[in-house]
Amino acid sequence: MGLTYEDAGVDIAEGERLVDRIKPLAAATRIPEVLGSVGGFAGLCGLPTDIADPVLVSGTDGVGTKLEVAIRAGKHDTVGIDLVAMCVNDIVTVGARPLFFLDYFATGKLEVAQGEAVVRGIAEGCKQAGCALLGGETAELPGFYDGGRYDLAGFAVGVVDRSAILDGKAVAEGDVLLGVASSGLHSNGYSLARRALIEGDGALPLDAPADGMDRPLGEVMLDPTRIYVKAALAAIGAGGVHALCHVTGGGLPGNLPRVLPEGHGAFVDGSWDEPAIFDLIRRRGDVAQAEMRRTFNLGIGFVVVAAADSVDAITAALEGAGESVVRLGSVERSDAEGEARVRYAS
Amino acid sequence: MGLTYEDAGVDIAEGERLVDRIKPLAAATRIPEVLGSVGGFAGLCGLPTDIADPVLVSGTDGVGTKLEVAIRAGKHDTVGIDLVAMCVNDIVTVGARPLFFLDYFATGKLEVAQGEAVVRGIAEGCKQAGCALLGGETAELPGFYDGGRYDLAGFAVGVVDRSAILDGKAVAEGDVLLGVASSGLHSNGYSLARRALIEGDGALPLDAPADGMDRPLGEVMLDPTRIYVKAALAAIGAGGVHALCHVTGGGLPGNLPRVLPEGHGAFVDGSWDEPAIFDLIRRRGDVAQAEMRRTFNLGIGFVVVAAADSVDAITAALEGAGESVVRLGSVERSDAEGEARVRYAS
Repeated sequence: MGLTYEDAGVDIAEGERLVDRIKPLAAATRIPEVLGSVGGFAGLCGLPTDIADPVLVSGTDGVGTKLEVAIRAGKHDTVGIDLVAMCVNDIVTVGARPLFFLDYFATGKLEVAQGEAVVRGIAEGCKQAGCALLGGETAELPGFYDGGRYDLAGFAVGVVDRSAILDGKAVAEGDVLLGVASSGLHSNGYSLARRALIEGDGALPLDAPADGMDRPLGEVMLDPTRIYVKAALAAIGAGGVHALCHVTGGGLPGNLPRVLPEGHGAFVDGSWDEPAIFDLIRRRGDVAQAEMRRTFNLGIGFVVVAAADSVDAITAALEGAGESVVRLGSVERSDAEGEARVRYAS
Repeated sequence: MGLTYEDAGVDIAEGERLVDRIKPLAAATRIPEVLGSVGGFAGLCGLPTDIADPVLVSGTDGVGTKLEVAIRAGKHDTVGIDLVAMCVNDIVTVGARPLFFLDYFATGKLEVAQGEAVVRGIAEGCKQAGCALLGGETAELPGFYDGGRYDLAGFAVGVVDRSAILDGKAVAEGDVLLGVASSGLHSNGYSLARRALIEGDGALPLDAPADGMDRPLGEVMLDPTRIYVKAALAAIGAGGVHALCHVTGGGLPGNLPRVLPEGHGAFVDGSWDEPAIFDLIRRRGDVAQAEMRRTFNLGIGFVVVAAADSVDAITAALEGAGESVVRLGSVERSDAEGEARVRYAS
């Protein structure tokens, strides 16, 4: 047979070409703590010198089926921002400053242009989060992914002083819930969004605007997840932050309860502008409001649980970092369990 | 339509059932530095107190198409060991002790039994490496993976004192290359291995032994990658270790050059027992020896580049940690480039 590895479907030279294109993208995200790579096997990063008792905070996440939209639209340069966002928005909730990020990119057949676009997005996300793209892995798995599909996994490590860990113990009745605006779908609920909008009978085209939009639907569906790191750290600096919540899969009902102490719930009586994409899904999918609320962020991507007397300072800090803030509601006593702990005024 | 998220193919309850089964598996890997999880968004880990100037070392990797064999064989409880091995064997090469590990598991339709088996393997790998399974993500991507396929990505973080980073600068002509035995294929070269053995005309069955084996072929192909962390740290403790090399994709020619200084090469004149699986591939795939060498580990999973006068102490340390060691060869001056820097006596 005279088989070679290349015959079996793996193109090593293509992989090396991609690595060459990645190097400058990663180098541009370097932070002072990063040491030069040694021998190519792993990335090295020192610790910030201004943290007396450093605790590492780490999380991993993917982008989910938002990737399906990117692959259909042939637009790969922003899902990397989503990947970074999903990880760093999580680790900042305990007060950690992200230090570095690694990515895992797997596909059936490696295409350098596609891979480079993906990493360009990851590098942009790292810049927004202030962390270094320290390393990554590109895996070519012939037979695993078809139709140009790929998957992405991200991994972030941050650091926080042990005395400054936001453990939520200060959350109390009367605390104010401040909602920070999302850019749209972010990275959750895409299976339902796709089913309602771009699949099956009456599927809308990706390359044209839908009702109420001035940009093509595909572009709106690919708007990257906002990275809240700088805003969250600024808010913490303002004082009075009791807890932080990243609104992901499950919406407010799925995420807020995790930061509320036992016997407490959230009363959501604020109002805010909901990005148009959500009502499009609601109408075309005939999705009940309760299902919308437990699947999508509906315009609120991050929640700050604030001491009532710190609301103005925290709001100013968030807005100073470029975010849009609304008063979402407040923390109340509650006997409810699970998602029911989040109570809506209407 | 009255669409729900579940209609669109995502089973949230199944995901929660898996999380419940994962918790005790992860808890069993806890190390003293781990803090309790806070709010469920991220994992927290302190630093060892005996490192004066800690530098973090991090790497990510997957298992590759070894997963295809696991999926065909319906045996998912050992690929997690491979996942951990690929990451921790890399970070230990700069002298770092692994602290924690995270995993990303993606599939088309979540099956709790399969997911639990995978995490059981990951937890076992973490125990062998002495690190904590700090967190992970399970992603259900309907439409992305078919035929019961899944993919895995691993992320490891270790720590080393800045003064103890193994940067390879001490490697010199005359250093001895000590080869540490592999358990078999480990996690590389599976696309070629599968093509030669279990696909196409004359494909061998997975559930029966092949020539020269006393166990079913599938079991041999799934033998987990050896985790060399304890052995490597013991060797470093013995003194005289100039560099460490994890032999992965590319075999010795693809990996050894990364730890050899410019103008130097490796002369491989040792001999060792090659696991039977390699000759099976060589014969059935009619694979040229040069291709075998640059695709597979051929029985050597890890290489220690040792000062000549420390060989006995290092060998004793490696064997004391349970490894099998052979004298592989030595470091020589060389004008060759790339893979040609690894020269075989025959």
